[in-house]
Amino acid sequence: MSSRGRNVEVGSEYFAGALSIVFHPCNPYVPTFRSDVRYFEVKDFGWFGGGADLTPNYLDEDDARYFHTFLKEICDKFDPDFYQRSKSACDSYFYLPARKEHRGIGGIFFDDLESFTVDDHKSENSIMVKEKYKSERAQVFEFVCQLAKGFLPSYLPIVKRKRDLPYGDRERQWQLLRRGRYLEFNLLYDRGVKFGLDGGRIESIMVSAPPLIAWKYNVVPEIGSPEAQMIETLSCPRIWV
Amino acid sequence: MSSRGRNVEVGSEYFAGALSIVFHPCNPYVPTFRSDVRYFEVKDFGWFGGGADLTPNYLDEDDARYFHTFLKEICDKFDPDFYQRSKSACDSYFYLPARKEHRGIGGIFFDDLESFTVDDHKSENSIMVKEKYKSERAQVFEFVCQLAKGFLPSYLPIVKRKRDLPYGDRERQWQLLRRGRYLEFNLLYDRGVKFGLDGGRIESIMVSAPPLIAWKYNVVPEIGSPEAQMIETLSCPRIWV
Repeated sequence: MSSRGRNVEVGSEYFAGALSIVFHPCNPYVPTFRSDVRYFEVKDFGWFGGGADLTPNYLDEDDARYFHTFLKEICDKFDPDFYQRSKSACDSYFYLPARKEHRGIGGIFFDDLESFTVDDHKSENSIMVKEKYKSERAQVFEFVCQLAKGFLPSYLPIVKRKRDLPYGDRERQWQLLRRGRYLEFNLLYDRGVKFGLDGGRIESIMVSAPPLIAWKYNVVPEIGSPEAQMIETLSCPRIWV
Repeated sequence: MSSRGRNVEVGSEYFAGALSIVFHPCNPYVPTFRSDVRYFEVKDFGWFGGGADLTPNYLDEDDARYFHTFLKEICDKFDPDFYQRSKSACDSYFYLPARKEHRGIGGIFFDDLESFTVDDHKSENSIMVKEKYKSERAQVFEFVCQLAKGFLPSYLPIVKRKRDLPYGDRERQWQLLRRGRYLEFNLLYDRGVKFGLDGGRIESIMVSAPPLIAWKYNVVPEIGSPEAQMIETLSCPRIWV
C-alpha cells in the first residue's frame, strides 16, 4: 500500500495538494485499488481532480456493482450527471491501446472539475462570475472531501470478503502477470507519471508500482477459464449500476 | 532469453530485417545482455542499426573490460573511430534521466550507419555517389555480420565465469530491483519500444522484459557495499578500453 499527501508553496503564486492511495493486495482474489484527490491553484483559479478505480485479476460482478454503486451515490449528491461522465472518463483514461484492454473495471475519474462546472470563469472577471465560482468551489470541495472519505468504505468490504480465500500457484502467477499490465499502463500512458518524472520525484511516482511483477510471452488463457473471462471483461467497459 | 528475426515485404517499396537477443540470467552475478542488428531500406536508400550492451547487477571490472575490448576489436577493423563514437552513443542512449543513472555499463550503439558514413547520399543523385554508397554498403554489411557473429563470444565467457557462483536472498532481491530499472528504461524511454507499440507488436516488444521484477520504495544501498559501488558506476560512464 502506498499513500501520499503533499502541500506545495501555500500562500504563494501557486498551491497544490494531493492525496493518493494504491493497494496491491497479496491475495490474487483481492482487486488492486487506486484513488486520489488533488487540488491545484494558480493565482485566482483553482481546480480539483481525482477518482477511484478497481483492477481485479478475477472478475466478481458483485464486487464491481458494489464499488460502482458506492461511488455513484457519492456523485449523485453532488450532480446527477457526474457519475456517468466521470465513469466514462475513467474507462477512457485507463486504457492500453497496444493491448486493446482497459486496465481494470473502472470507477470514476475527473481531471479539471472546476472548469467543468463553471465554464466561463477563466474568461470573465465580473464580480457575479467570481461569486458563482466561489460558491461552486465550496460545493466541489465538499464533494471531493466526501469522495476521499469514501475511498476506504468503497474498497474494504471487498477486501474482507476475499482476503482469506485460498489460492495456489496458478492464481499467484496470473496476479503477477496482470500486475505487468498495471505497470505497462503507468509507465507507457499515465499522465501523472510523466508529470511526476518531469518534476524529478521518481521514487514518489514509482511507489505506486506493484511490489512483484512477472512477464511471459504471449499468455493466452484457456477459453472459458476465469482468466479468459477477466480479459473479455477488460476488452469493453460494462455498465455496473 | 528472447531472440527475434523478421523480414518484411521483400522486393516491395520497403524492406526491414532485424535480429535481437536479450538474456535475463537467473544468477544475479551474471549481467543482462542485449544486442541487435537491423536493416531498413526505403526505395533506393538503406541503413543499418544495432549494438550490444551489458547491464550487470554487480560490477566486475574484468567483465566490463573484456566486453568492451571484444566489441572494440570488431569495430576497429571497420573504422578506427567507430568504437569511440558508438560507445558514446550507447552511454547517451541507455540513460534514465529521472534516475540520473545509465542503464548499464554500456557497449556500442548505432542508429543510422549508412547516412553516417556517406553524409550526402540522400541529397545527390550522381552515379559516382551511388557507386560509393553501394561500396560502403557492402563494407557496412560485412561489419554488421561480424558484429552479429560476435554477440555470443562477447558474452558467453562472462556467463561461464559467473553462472555457478553461489548467491542468496540479498543478491536475488537486488537483481529483481535492478530489473525494475531495466523495465523503466524500456517503457519510459526506449524508441524501439515506442516504434513497436505503434506497429501493434506488443508481445514481440515485451518479450524483452525481465521475467520477474520487484519494486521497493527508495532503496539506498549501504555506503561501500557492492550494490552502492554498482550504482556509483552507473552515475557516470567509464572508459573501459
